[in-house]
Amino acid sequence: MKVLRNVEEALEFTKGNYQKSVGLVPTMGFLHAGHKSLIDEARKNNDIVVVSIFVNPTQFGPGEDYEAYPRDEERDFKLCEDAGVDAVFTPDPKEFYQNHKTYVTIEDLKDNLCGKTRPIHFRGVLTVLTKLFHIFKPTNAYFGRKDAQQFLIVKKAVYDLNFGINIVPCPIKREDDGLAISSRNVYLSEEERKAAPILHKALEKGRAAIKKGMKAEDLIKIIVDEIKTEKLSDIEYVQVVDTKEIKDVDIIDGDVLVALAVRFGKTRLIDNFFYEV
Amino acid sequence: MKVLRNVEEALEFTKGNYQKSVGLVPTMGFLHAGHKSLIDEARKNNDIVVVSIFVNPTQFGPGEDYEAYPRDEERDFKLCEDAGVDAVFTPDPKEFYQNHKTYVTIEDLKDNLCGKTRPIHFRGVLTVLTKLFHIFKPTNAYFGRKDAQQFLIVKKAVYDLNFGINIVPCPIKREDDGLAISSRNVYLSEEERKAAPILHKALEKGRAAIKKGMKAEDLIKIIVDEIKTEKLSDIEYVQVVDTKEIKDVDIIDGDVLVALAVRFGKTRLIDNFFYEV
Repeated sequence: MKVLRNVEEALEFTKGNYQKSVGLVPTMGFLHAGHKSLIDEARKNNDIVVVSIFVNPTQFGPGEDYEAYPRDEERDFKLCEDAGVDAVFTPDPKEFYQNHKTYVTIEDLKDNLCGKTRPIHFRGVLTVLTKLFHIFKPTNAYFGRKDAQQFLIVKKAVYDLNFGINIVPCPIKREDDGLAISSRNVYLSEEERKAAPILHKALEKGRAAIKKGMKAEDLIKIIVDEIKTEKLSDIEYVQVVDTKEIKDVDIIDGDVLVALAVRFGKTRLIDNFFYEV
Repeated sequence: MKVLRNVEEALEFTKGNYQKSVGLVPTMGFLHAGHKSLIDEARKNNDIVVVSIFVNPTQFGPGEDYEAYPRDEERDFKLCEDAGVDAVFTPDPKEFYQNHKTYVTIEDLKDNLCGKTRPIHFRGVLTVLTKLFHIFKPTNAYFGRKDAQQFLIVKKAVYDLNFGINIVPCPIKREDDGLAISSRNVYLSEEERKAAPILHKALEKGRAAIKKGMKAEDLIKIIVDEIKTEKLSDIEYVQVVDTKEIKDVDIIDGDVLVALAVRFGKTRLIDNFFYEV
C-alpha cells in the first residue's frame, strides 16, 4: 500500500492508473466499521482503491471540533492495508490549501438540516471533494448514508458540474444496540453512550409509522416524543425533507429523508432513514 | 468539424480523444480576430481543438446585456471550420443548466476591478469553465489577455482546485487604430467608435511612463487625464493591482496589471497591460 503525503505524489500515483477503474473513499480518518464497509464496496468494484484520510479544515466552522477531531494514523493505515487498499492520501492541510481562495458551493440544498447550524460545512465538503476528484480521477466515489445531506449534495453537485463520477451510497453501519457508528462516538461519556441508541429506536418507531399521505408533523412528533424519553438528549432538529431540494415537506407524498441531529452533552450525533413512496 | 449540441454528444466526442492532447477555446461566440488567434495557438499545440460557443447566462447580472449579446452561429461555424477546429460545442442554456444549484467562486480576486460592478460575473465564468473542463478534459485552455482579471482568476482557481489543466494566455488583438477587438465593439455608434481608441492611447502613455518605485496614483493620473480628453468617455475605473490577489498597489514594486473599464454611451469597454518589474 502506498502512502501519499502530498499532491505531487498523488498525481504521480494517478498517472499509473490510466485506463483502470479507480474507487475513491474520502474520509476524515479514525476509521471504523462504516468506513470499512465503503472500502470493501470499493474493493469489489474497482481496479484501484484510494482512501483519503484528511481532517478537512474548510468544513469546520469556528468553535467546531477541528482541533479535537480524533486521529489515529497508525490504526487507519493498518485497517486500509488489511482491507486491500492500494493507496492512502494524507496531505498536510497547510500545503493542501496554500493561500486558498476558490470554493465550490451549492444553493438551497445546503441551507436546511445540518446546514442551518453549519453554514460553511458543505462548501468545505464540496471544495475538498473537488480537489480529490481532480487529483485521483475516480470512476466511483463512496459515501455513507449516515451523512445523508452530504450524499444528496454531492450527488447534485457532481451532476451540476458534469464531474462524470459515479457517486455510490452505502448503508449506515450500527453498533449492536443500534447507535449509528461515527468517529464522534468516542466523545460520549459512558452515560451518554448508554442514552444515544434512543435515536435509532425513535427513527425505527417513525419508520414503522410512516406512510404515504401522512402529515410530516405527525411523524416528527412520534420521533421527538420518543427521543425526549431520554433525559440526556438535546434535540437540534428532527425533520422530513424531499430528496431533491432538501426542503421540508408538509405531507409525505414523494421520496423523503427523515433526519435528525441531537446533542448528548457536547457531542452532536446525526442519524436518518430514507423512505421511498 | 463536429457540431456538438448537448452534453451527451460532447461526452461521446471526448471518449474518442483518449490519450490525445486537447486544446479548449471557451468563447461566447461572435468570433473575431482575438478568438481566431486563440484557436490558431490551440491548433499549433494540440491533437484536438474544441471551441465552445455559448453565451453563458450565469455570468450576466440583472440589467446586463445577456439578451442583446451579439450572436452569429453561421459565421462562427465557418471561422472555426476554416481554422481547422475539430468540434464546436453550442449547448442550449436551459438544458445545460437544468435546475442548476452548484457554483464555483473565488474570494478576494473577484472583488476588485470588473467584479466591483459585476458581483456574480466571475462566479458564472468559473462555473461554466468547470463544466466545460469536466466535459472536454482539455490539456490546454486558451484565454485572451484582454479579459485580464478573468485570466488571473481562472489560473488561480485551476491551481486551487487541482484541475491539472494548462491555462494559456494570449496577447490582446487590436484594430489598426489600437482599439482592443471585442464582440461588444459592434454596440458602438460611429462617433463612439472614433473616440474609443483613446483607451489604448492612454494605456500606451502609461506604459511609457511606468517604472519601478513609481506611485500608482501618478500613473493612474496620466492615464485618466488622457482618457478625459475624449468627451464621450465615462470612466468606471483605472486601477493598478498586483497580479496575485488583484489588490490595489500604492507603489509599483512587483508585477502589476494596469486595467481600465470605460463606457462610451451604453457600451462598456475594457483594456489593460501587464508590467513585470
